[in-house]
Amino acid sequence: MEAKRIYVDHSATTPMKKEVLDAMLPYFTESFGNASTVYAEGRETKKAINTAREQVAKAIGATADEIFFAGSGTEADNWAIRGIAAANRNKGNHIITSAVEHHAILHTCAALEKDGFEVTYLPVDEYGMVSPESVRDAITDKTILVSIMTANNEIGTIMPIAEIGKIVKEKGVIFHTDAVQAIGMMKIDVDELNVDLLSVTGHKFYGPKGSGALYVRKGTKISPFVTGGGQEKNKRAGTENVPAIVGLGKAIELATEDIEGHNKKLRQMRDRFIDRILNEIPYTRLNGHRTERMASNANISFEFIEGESLLLMLDMKGISASSGSACTSGSLDPSHVLLAIGLKHETAHGSLRVTFGNSNTMEDVDTIVEELKVIVARLREMSPLYEAVKNK
Amino acid sequence: MEAKRIYVDHSATTPMKKEVLDAMLPYFTESFGNASTVYAEGRETKKAINTAREQVAKAIGATADEIFFAGSGTEADNWAIRGIAAANRNKGNHIITSAVEHHAILHTCAALEKDGFEVTYLPVDEYGMVSPESVRDAITDKTILVSIMTANNEIGTIMPIAEIGKIVKEKGVIFHTDAVQAIGMMKIDVDELNVDLLSVTGHKFYGPKGSGALYVRKGTKISPFVTGGGQEKNKRAGTENVPAIVGLGKAIELATEDIEGHNKKLRQMRDRFIDRILNEIPYTRLNGHRTERMASNANISFEFIEGESLLLMLDMKGISASSGSACTSGSLDPSHVLLAIGLKHETAHGSLRVTFGNSNTMEDVDTIVEELKVIVARLREMSPLYEAVKNK
Repeated sequence: MEAKRIYVDHSATTPMKKEVLDAMLPYFTESFGNASTVYAEGRETKKAINTAREQVAKAIGATADEIFFAGSGTEADNWAIRGIAAANRNKGNHIITSAVEHHAILHTCAALEKDGFEVTYLPVDEYGMVSPESVRDAITDKTILVSIMTANNEIGTIMPIAEIGKIVKEKGVIFHTDAVQAIGMMKIDVDELNVDLLSVTGHKFYGPKGSGALYVRKGTKISPFVTGGGQEKNKRAGTENVPAIVGLGKAIELATEDIEGHNKKLRQMRDRFIDRILNEIPYTRLNGHRTERMASNANISFEFIEGESLLLMLDMKGISASSGSACTSGSLDPSHVLLAIGLKHETAHGSLRVTFGNSNTMEDVDTIVEELKVIVARLREMSPLYEAVKNK
Repeated sequence: MEAKRIYVDHSATTPMKKEVLDAMLPYFTESFGNASTVYAEGRETKKAINTAREQVAKAIGATADEIFFAGSGTEADNWAIRGIAAANRNKGNHIITSAVEHHAILHTCAALEKDGFEVTYLPVDEYGMVSPESVRDAITDKTILVSIMTANNEIGTIMPIAEIGKIVKEKGVIFHTDAVQAIGMMKIDVDELNVDLLSVTGHKFYGPKGSGALYVRKGTKISPFVTGGGQEKNKRAGTENVPAIVGLGKAIELATEDIEGHNKKLRQMRDRFIDRILNEIPYTRLNGHRTERMASNANISFEFIEGESLLLMLDMKGISASSGSACTSGSLDPSHVLLAIGLKHETAHGSLRVTFGNSNTMEDVDTIVEELKVIVARLREMSPLYEAVKNK
């Protein structure tokens, strides 16, 4: 039988906590009523949804009537971009985002460009950081929306959202942040961050897949994205997914009750991992910021290595890690994030993302490092480029 | 303690079957991997998704590569309409639908009208039926899409989809059907029906809320609706909701394995209900077609009655029914479907939809009829209009 596997891809998705499943279970077969109905079964599920709405609101410093449930973080991102674009088209056609956003933002912006919108993709520095001054400089009188992620899903860099938000607010522009990776990893307060919209999904913090929410600050003009029935105050059509909503509420409550305690353990594992790799394996570099990064995230480039082979060999050793975003795993292109921070194509291709979570231990860290030393050495043995460098 | 409630709103939503929940359970906390990853956890969930894709395909006579998962029936409808409109805009800007579609179709078409599309909303006859000839007459050389629902969610009328599809196919136009209410209620074969796109959601046939699928016939040009990662062959972005997908697959398999047996029981209940109501309560009428209707559906207008009061009084007696679509329950407008079949506003307002399901019995039917007799009599006592008629 296979030994216990080591899962270090928590930025791709997380297992649901038992408490979250327990909270959801009654709503599948027993309390199943359509929440948009007037009778007892519907009132019961509507109440459960309202509780979840309060939980999400509390976790991010919002009020319940500013929380709208959606079907995924990607849908929340699509809605933020398209909903603001459609509702504010009369004010301008310019959107500002960054080169390192998730594809849920980038591909949606690209689609809007075909519809006559102009999009500025701000560059980032070598750590993946967007400079607040670059946002200020990019804003024109046509700018209707700025969208910058709270923390990067590939390299873990935490953006200066509060500062950017202050500038965007002064300019009277709407500010969205994709906080899909950030919830549970740092304190999020929509007022302190000066954001008008914020995207969330539950499955990044031990909640359900297929859950999502968009925070919309009161007074923000936004069109619906999914149209149809009158659910979510006419803002998001479709029968309320009660179990997912209940699970999202419970998961965000659990994820935000002791962020520092949770991070402390992750940071120790992450730092040991980074230090050992950089010290013990030559021709490696850390991608992302050394300190302004999520406690869970390590992203390392191994020169002379093909990332896909690395992943497959780790998998054979029972270790589940990734080369970047799971959402682009079918693609052979190198990560747009790693290219944006200045990596060469070859270096970007030889990169590994390890994201720690609740189930990991310090022993896991050492096991991964030891396996990596062997695997990297073996893969490099097969590399003519490495041979050339070694024999210099 | 309250006695067992009688739930007769199965067209709004259904409780999940235990077998469906059992199929889903492993994918919440144990087999939780992101299906777009290369390692063992991801391969396992990808396999589960492929099984579900086969199950959905088999249930509607399609092949697995023509099935794309989405987050709800409403999303599938939005995607069909917007995706075809965007991808075929160069061919024309005309869309044909009917006046009795679900709002997921109607509101999406209305949004497209603002973007320069022209939409024909075909009228229906007194039974809610779209005539195939009216479709033929409406098609122009600008028509890119016809969307007609398989069966109506409010009055249960089953549309002549195969006939309509034949005409639409001859004309070389793309044909979509919203089959959200029809799955499990009748045999659905995409080839026999001549449809190119078909929308599904699991929670109408004892599967999960937040599940959906769109059938897209091979070769049909369609743009994505939710953009971002490369999931669903670049056609629907967002981390795959594995439990919902697995549940949808299991539920559609169960719902389609003995449609006739399932319907026979429902039809007996429905017919006894309709007959008793029409015979025993004066000033009532059946809405929808007498025979070309879903086995589950009864929709009755009670003259001199306000439907909302009727629902509340039924609820107090432990009976959960609806006045129409749950998706519009917040609205005070009368049902657009009942107006489309020619009902006056007052009559439409006094209508009741009862939709039977697995949990119901013949005793339930009689209980509902007896309660209705009392409630309707009481409500009419308070109606000055009824007094006037009675004293004529």
